[in-house]
Amino acid sequence: MVALTAIDPAHVVGTGGAIGALLRQYVSQAVAVEEYPLGTFAVNVLGSFVLALVAFGGVGGQLGLLLGTGLAGSFTTFSTFSYETVRLWETGERLRATVNAVSSIVGAVLTIGLARWLLAGLG
Amino acid sequence: MVALTAIDPAHVVGTGGAIGALLRQYVSQAVAVEEYPLGTFAVNVLGSFVLALVAFGGVGGQLGLLLGTGLAGSFTTFSTFSYETVRLWETGERLRATVNAVSSIVGAVLTIGLARWLLAGLG
Repeated sequence: MVALTAIDPAHVVGTGGAIGALLRQYVSQAVAVEEYPLGTFAVNVLGSFVLALVAFGGVGGQLGLLLGTGLAGSFTTFSTFSYETVRLWETGERLRATVNAVSSIVGAVLTIGLARWLLAGLG
Repeated sequence: MVALTAIDPAHVVGTGGAIGALLRQYVSQAVAVEEYPLGTFAVNVLGSFVLALVAFGGVGGQLGLLLGTGLAGSFTTFSTFSYETVRLWETGERLRATVNAVSSIVGAVLTIGLARWLLAGLG
């Protein structure tokens, strides 16, 4: 078995990034609904939870790069979030645009708190 | 030369995701400063611009998956943005946390508008 530490960090980030992007596409399509960007909301809240587990859990080194920078970083997306919010606003769906922006940030903050609470319970 | 249409869409998304994650790490480290998440701000605003060019430019199919879902999606990150904002708030840097959240969203919205304005000028 190849030790993870023997692998180029760039390969570790790239591999996590590829997996994260694919999982994002699968999950966001699985929970997609019409007329509301629920898929992007779901991956952003879920991915923020995973990143918080990695960060608060003190997962560093190559595993931290794989799971945090690579996987959780690529699973979540700020560009699609911003684009979908702008499109909602432009098409007159200003309440939905506002709900999407606020709930995405509040949801992520809550799951980051949840991750720390769970880790504190284990520690 | 292998036509892009002959490649499994999952490989296209994964490849774009790997490149996006690596570029995110390079760019965010290149513009990093102490005590403020400028690196994440930069990739999120720049990546939102790229996604808007792809989306408003009507780039679909495999190239859209490569550049939009894969590359821009993974280059930007909602999880690190949320985590860094929470950490700023928790450490008493509430003004910086608020500035980071507001400027990230406003910056992304402005570059999405810029992308459309540029494309309209070309079209």
